[in-house]
Amino acid sequence: MKIFHSSKHAAHYPRNFLVNGVLKPNPETPERAEALLAAALAAGHEEVEPRADMDLGPLAAVHTPEYLSFLAGIHERWRRIEGASAEVVPNIHPNGRHGGYPDSAVGQAGYHMADTACPISQGTWPAAVASAQAAVAASREVLDGAAAAYALCRPPGHHAFADMAGGFCYLNNSAIAAQTLRARHDRVAILDVDLHHGNGTQGIFYGRDDVLTVSLHADPARFYPFFWGHAHERGEGAGIGYNFNLPLARGTGDEGFLAALERGLHRIRAFAPGALVVALGLDAHKDDPLAGLALSTDGFERIGTAIARLGLPSALVQEGGYLTAALGANLCAFLRGFETAGT
Amino acid sequence: MKIFHSSKHAAHYPRNFLVNGVLKPNPETPERAEALLAAALAAGHEEVEPRADMDLGPLAAVHTPEYLSFLAGIHERWRRIEGASAEVVPNIHPNGRHGGYPDSAVGQAGYHMADTACPISQGTWPAAVASAQAAVAASREVLDGAAAAYALCRPPGHHAFADMAGGFCYLNNSAIAAQTLRARHDRVAILDVDLHHGNGTQGIFYGRDDVLTVSLHADPARFYPFFWGHAHERGEGAGIGYNFNLPLARGTGDEGFLAALERGLHRIRAFAPGALVVALGLDAHKDDPLAGLALSTDGFERIGTAIARLGLPSALVQEGGYLTAALGANLCAFLRGFETAGT
Repeated sequence: MKIFHSSKHAAHYPRNFLVNGVLKPNPETPERAEALLAAALAAGHEEVEPRADMDLGPLAAVHTPEYLSFLAGIHERWRRIEGASAEVVPNIHPNGRHGGYPDSAVGQAGYHMADTACPISQGTWPAAVASAQAAVAASREVLDGAAAAYALCRPPGHHAFADMAGGFCYLNNSAIAAQTLRARHDRVAILDVDLHHGNGTQGIFYGRDDVLTVSLHADPARFYPFFWGHAHERGEGAGIGYNFNLPLARGTGDEGFLAALERGLHRIRAFAPGALVVALGLDAHKDDPLAGLALSTDGFERIGTAIARLGLPSALVQEGGYLTAALGANLCAFLRGFETAGT
Repeated sequence: MKIFHSSKHAAHYPRNFLVNGVLKPNPETPERAEALLAAALAAGHEEVEPRADMDLGPLAAVHTPEYLSFLAGIHERWRRIEGASAEVVPNIHPNGRHGGYPDSAVGQAGYHMADTACPISQGTWPAAVASAQAAVAASREVLDGAAAAYALCRPPGHHAFADMAGGFCYLNNSAIAAQTLRARHDRVAILDVDLHHGNGTQGIFYGRDDVLTVSLHADPARFYPFFWGHAHERGEGAGIGYNFNLPLARGTGDEGFLAALERGLHRIRAFAPGALVVALGLDAHKDDPLAGLALSTDGFERIGTAIARLGLPSALVQEGGYLTAALGANLCAFLRGFETAGT
């Protein structure tokens, strides 16, 4: 399978984030992508660098211009604040209580950033753009007739809303892929198998009936992202019934995950989409440091097979999954399961 | 003048907050209240300890039960999280993008706390309740016929919304005072002269026409609280026209402040209220470490005189104002100006 990947991600290296009030090392490191790439190449997949001359159109089809302008310029503005930290970190949030759009860098950081896990350094914007463009390139490969293509995106994307970063994510690569696929398909489904609820993806399509969003994840009652991902969240307006959340008990293993996955696939079949985006997090593995679910490497192969049996043209978009000895093997297991499903 | 004050505030001693991404010492210290009390006693004012048997009714008349339950219990719940910080500090916020009410301590912290400047320690809830009860006691003194009474509240309150802490504030003492005064007055005005916009107070009464909220403050375009305090914020629904913001350019001194104050007082006269709450921040002083405006000590005396000339029964509620050599003198200047206005 073709792997769309840009080496520009390495310029983005977030250092810390707050966990229960304590600063911890940020696990969303360049080494993640390097491990995934090395394993995929060793398994015989083919790396493709996305064209560097792509415009921002596919990003602007999903994100507000206010937000894209913020992301592109905030680090430079932040640097001019005397005594400010090296990375942009928010410290005040409007939290939905009235309030207008702020003028200042500090205010805009709080408006456009949900949490402390998405610090912005000098390399963040170019890395996020290159990551999104890998998703666009994979989607175009699928539009051009490929059965599937894989975008090795870093930073990940599924926690990014139309106008808000969060949880290591800035641009919603999976949403951008789905919107790109909409060019030739009336209905596109997104299936999110990351450990965490795809809250940004849900938010982007919450009022729409042309993109079905399905997410399997650790129950947000006691897990990030807390506010979103509950089973009762079904969409709004025209989008009611077009969002399907499958929260899983902490520690759920292969059998429980695959049973829930069947429910998600059943819902996707009922939507009869023309194409699929898989938001491919690998952090539901039992050894992942974020410690929410308990999939085995074999489980990822079975998940790949089950998804491939939808028979849909598919853009596979890398989301989370943090450094463990099994990280690369989990990706290869998924891709192997996906590619051999018909055989 | 009677000073309503509880020594219980000292159990609340927040340590740090994030400023432009950097941890700084929190200036909202017990020493502030001690300096204010010592100066007021030296000037001949009389300390009164609020009755300890007051119920939570006046607090519940302003804050949601969800929020009061959160404030009362969150520190004990936070302590049970393995490896959590000593103080409750939020790290993820819903920021108004859909999302439900979270079950977990971390989620609720982000839902009910706007920023990192309102950490919650073991002593926070009893201190905040005692602070609010001082405001209730001062208001009752006014209801019982006093021309004015002063509540030396700590922690301060005007950044607290009905369901959200922020900016060193947990319970909105000024709003609670106004609601208490509503028992016998159809219309009550709140005049906020703190350096910062009274965003919580505005939020609590934004849809109401029985409490007029007027705030003078440093322009939020580049100053805390960023999202709120702009001149265009006039209220909503029945409350349109009952909120009046007077943002001032950074560095505004006595003359500019007093000119804006006259506009605020003119608006209050047009509302013909039965009673007044003064949200009495002293941080607009030129030496205050939060460095926004440039009032002199004499300026506070003139402000006190101008407000007293409204001739309204008045509850004076302490808000911000941080340790400087002039802090106590600024309070005494205001009270002197207020008490001698008629003479």
